[in-house]
Amino acid sequence: MGLQEYQQGLDRSKDSLNHSAEHLNGNLKGKDILSVRQFDTTTLDCIYSWSQEMAEIAEKGYRADVLSRKILANLFYEPSTRTSSSFTAAMERLGGSVIPINEVVYSSVAKGEDLEDTVRTLEQYADVIVLRHPEMGSAKVAAEAASVPLINAGDGVGEHPTQALLDYVTVRKEQGRVDGLTVTMLGDMKNGRTVHSLARLLSSYDVKLNFVSPEILRMPAEIIDELSAKGVSQSEHEDLAEVLSETDVLYVTRVQKERFDDPAVYESVKGLYVVTPETLQAGKETLTIMHPLPRVGEIAKSVDSYTRNAAYFRQMENGLYVRMTLLAGVLGKLPT
Amino acid sequence: MGLQEYQQGLDRSKDSLNHSAEHLNGNLKGKDILSVRQFDTTTLDCIYSWSQEMAEIAEKGYRADVLSRKILANLFYEPSTRTSSSFTAAMERLGGSVIPINEVVYSSVAKGEDLEDTVRTLEQYADVIVLRHPEMGSAKVAAEAASVPLINAGDGVGEHPTQALLDYVTVRKEQGRVDGLTVTMLGDMKNGRTVHSLARLLSSYDVKLNFVSPEILRMPAEIIDELSAKGVSQSEHEDLAEVLSETDVLYVTRVQKERFDDPAVYESVKGLYVVTPETLQAGKETLTIMHPLPRVGEIAKSVDSYTRNAAYFRQMENGLYVRMTLLAGVLGKLPT
Amino acid sequence: MGLQEYQQGLDRSKDSLNHSAEHLNGNLKGKDILSVRQFDTTTLDCIYSWSQEMAEIAEKGYRADVLSRKILANLFYEPSTRTSSSFTAAMERLGGSVIPINEVVYSSVAKGEDLEDTVRTLEQYADVIVLRHPEMGSAKVAAEAASVPLINAGDGVGEHPTQALLDYVTVRKEQGRVDGLTVTMLGDMKNGRTVHSLARLLSSYDVKLNFVSPEILRMPAEIIDELSAKGVSQSEHEDLAEVLSETDVLYVTRVQKERFDDPAVYESVKGLYVVTPETLQAGKETLTIMHPLPRVGEIAKSVDSYTRNAAYFRQMENGLYVRMTLLAGVLGKLPT
Repeated sequence: MGLQEYQQGLDRSKDSLNHSAEHLNGNLKGKDILSVRQFDTTTLDCIYSWSQEMAEIAEKGYRADVLSRKILANLFYEPSTRTSSSFTAAMERLGGSVIPINEVVYSSVAKGEDLEDTVRTLEQYADVIVLRHPEMGSAKVAAEAASVPLINAGDGVGEHPTQALLDYVTVRKEQGRVDGLTVTMLGDMKNGRTVHSLARLLSSYDVKLNFVSPEILRMPAEIIDELSAKGVSQSEHEDLAEVLSETDVLYVTRVQKERFDDPAVYESVKGLYVVTPETLQAGKETLTIMHPLPRVGEIAKSVDSYTRNAAYFRQMENGLYVRMTLLAGVLGKLPT
Repeated sequence: MGLQEYQQGLDRSKDSLNHSAEHLNGNLKGKDILSVRQFDTTTLDCIYSWSQEMAEIAEKGYRADVLSRKILANLFYEPSTRTSSSFTAAMERLGGSVIPINEVVYSSVAKGEDLEDTVRTLEQYADVIVLRHPEMGSAKVAAEAASVPLINAGDGVGEHPTQALLDYVTVRKEQGRVDGLTVTMLGDMKNGRTVHSLARLLSSYDVKLNFVSPEILRMPAEIIDELSAKGVSQSEHEDLAEVLSETDVLYVTRVQKERFDDPAVYESVKGLYVVTPETLQAGKETLTIMHPLPRVGEIAKSVDSYTRNAAYFRQMENGLYVRMTLLAGVLGKLPT
Repeated sequence: MGLQEYQQGLDRSKDSLNHSAEHLNGNLKGKDILSVRQFDTTTLDCIYSWSQEMAEIAEKGYRADVLSRKILANLFYEPSTRTSSSFTAAMERLGGSVIPINEVVYSSVAKGEDLEDTVRTLEQYADVIVLRHPEMGSAKVAAEAASVPLINAGDGVGEHPTQALLDYVTVRKEQGRVDGLTVTMLGDMKNGRTVHSLARLLSSYDVKLNFVSPEILRMPAEIIDELSAKGVSQSEHEDLAEVLSETDVLYVTRVQKERFDDPAVYESVKGLYVVTPETLQAGKETLTIMHPLPRVGEIAKSVDSYTRNAAYFRQMENGLYVRMTLLAGVLGKLPT
């Protein structure tokens, strides 16, 4: 490649980034982020591009003032160090400030104030609100009350869109593409908000999905049906060995003892849902291993150093870049 | 009005803002904010002017660095999301930083350290301290120990001066004046720190005050006497209907069931202290409705959209501007 | 001193500060701060010089942007308002931002995540981690997992190196030197992490150390031995009166009732470990009184104003400057 072609490549890339910024500012500014279903593949492309750019910004610190003088109210009705820290860092990496609200159990909610009034109060102080709440549907209620953008950071068994987006960005970054991949989800398919959201998001792409779980923790029928309606190729299994060799991305989640009525059943199956270096020997060399974290033994620590394709901490990192992108997007501040 | 007059108006207004800044910097710099009683009407005028200017600064972001490199220790011995968030936002809107201290119950106080030592420690790190504490008189004790300015954000049944100031600013902004108004306070007059402070503050103006409450929750005699001594026209009622039609500002507070020895008495009166659109039909079209929030049913949600004179969320907003003004004032940093 | 000599003095001092910055950047950049034992006297000299310079920076605000765009994860597994606030202020005074994490008991740790995974997650968001944890050795475990610098802010009965450094800086600032001093430590020598660390740090200097404590709270033998091996002159006492007159620095710690099996023994000795103005009348006029705080009666409040050599609040202040120095050092950002 000659210098001229290289320069043109850079220009095209810069052009493409500008177009992505315009697209995101245009489509996200003033909007709420409530569900993965609100993103089409063009928007997902732009989020992917900007997540890569945000990695540069976070590292090198240029353009790190696009959210200066902007304030985020980080409203957590249940604790989540990782998600809360990630949004805080995202705001601060772009020069913005944060109002941390972690003690709502003791606060005006304890005095009986409802979520809508809390949100309408906070929007007097902040330019954007991030909400984590234990009840499904709470993010929508809050977003309708708020006049500033509200980002759902998890509402019970409902949605957690920024998690699904960071999972998508990680799959694409690690594998270089999404179309054509076989993604195997392992563990609790029934209660896992994370796998539900990611499966939905991936259904816009040409992927094969495998769900591996104990019988009692199978993927809910309505999600299977929703994916079928979109033409996604999918299959269910109880044993990872049946699909491991064809898998490009292995997405691990925890199987909790409490989900089982009969402890003996748990004891008989639990070993099937723990990933070790031995497990992985039957997998592709390029197999990407993901996990939403925290893990509690379902991926052995020895896996961390066993393969550089253990991607779960890079997944956390991508969460920062996705959230930087979304915060800048809903405030209409992605630089063009 | 010709261009020249308009320009002169702007200049006069800018002059007036400069004079207000000089007055506040001169009178507040290095001082504590402990009680509404420390403000004369000139200072109240200046706070009012700057609260309006701070709205511009918060929105447009110019001059938003007057408190850069300044640090606020936000010391909350009891939770109050609204007040704590408001001070945090006020500091951040002016470019300053915050040390959030919300867990004092677990902190050195739990190890037995007293308030004075805590404050003397924090002033090593911060330029100004905001204190919320459950005990009346604690703000004064802390302020005497501290060599940096301390702002009382509520000390039990004592004072909460920034609440009274934001109430005053809201009355004036909504009605365009204070003199000549009839202000009716509804609910619990006995235990409400908020209504005590606001009544005291308004006693410097030519207002008529109505107190509407159940018999057992009447305004304390010492406050009635204090207001009488200042020549304030006041009257007490059990039924809002008696004074609603003459009211310019209706200030609503909660009547708590726990205040009643006999639940039957509570049940018999509670309906009298709930404001609904129906209640308001007998009121002036320009009636301003206020509430310190959080509300728990004493103003029906339908009131929010029933009238644009439902001012309680704008009241929260004014809290931000008042606190920006006071923080800049005690640090002597209002721009001139 | 003529003008030229004065100018040369300034230049030498500026030179010396530059050399100190180069030394600290060179020796601390990318490193963890785990124990006082990692500092030689040259490094201690540099920390002392920069602690004085940081006082200027904190006060005047110049160079106050050396950590702009840097983020600290302030990870506290047990509450400590003073230490947590001090690190927060240190970061903010240098233009950096903070992710406050005070609720780890409710957070992913509650879900079972281990310290290593938590730290590896946080380093995706932050440039430096400060850790307070109740278990001895936890800081080392965390530091080995982290690729960003980690500063130990106290790990149970283990180390608390920034406390020892601020104690050292205070001794030197108050007395103008370290060599040649007699330092008397009073109270609980057995359980006091603070006195253990300070004694170790001072053992690199030519000091005389007196340990005054109840019999059952004597300095552990291994520390006595360690100090002996380094040739430190030391002696143990039960009564302060035996050594007060020769003492230059009196370092007071608390004697807790719970440490005694027999309450009668506690009652019989407790008066010996409370410092009052009367106690001090037998001391040198230049006697420096220190305490790690919080105090609970072991130094009477009347001592605060009795002598300007009551240095415990200045000790807190020095903590800020030491932490500013260390944060800038491990990030390689001390200005040269």
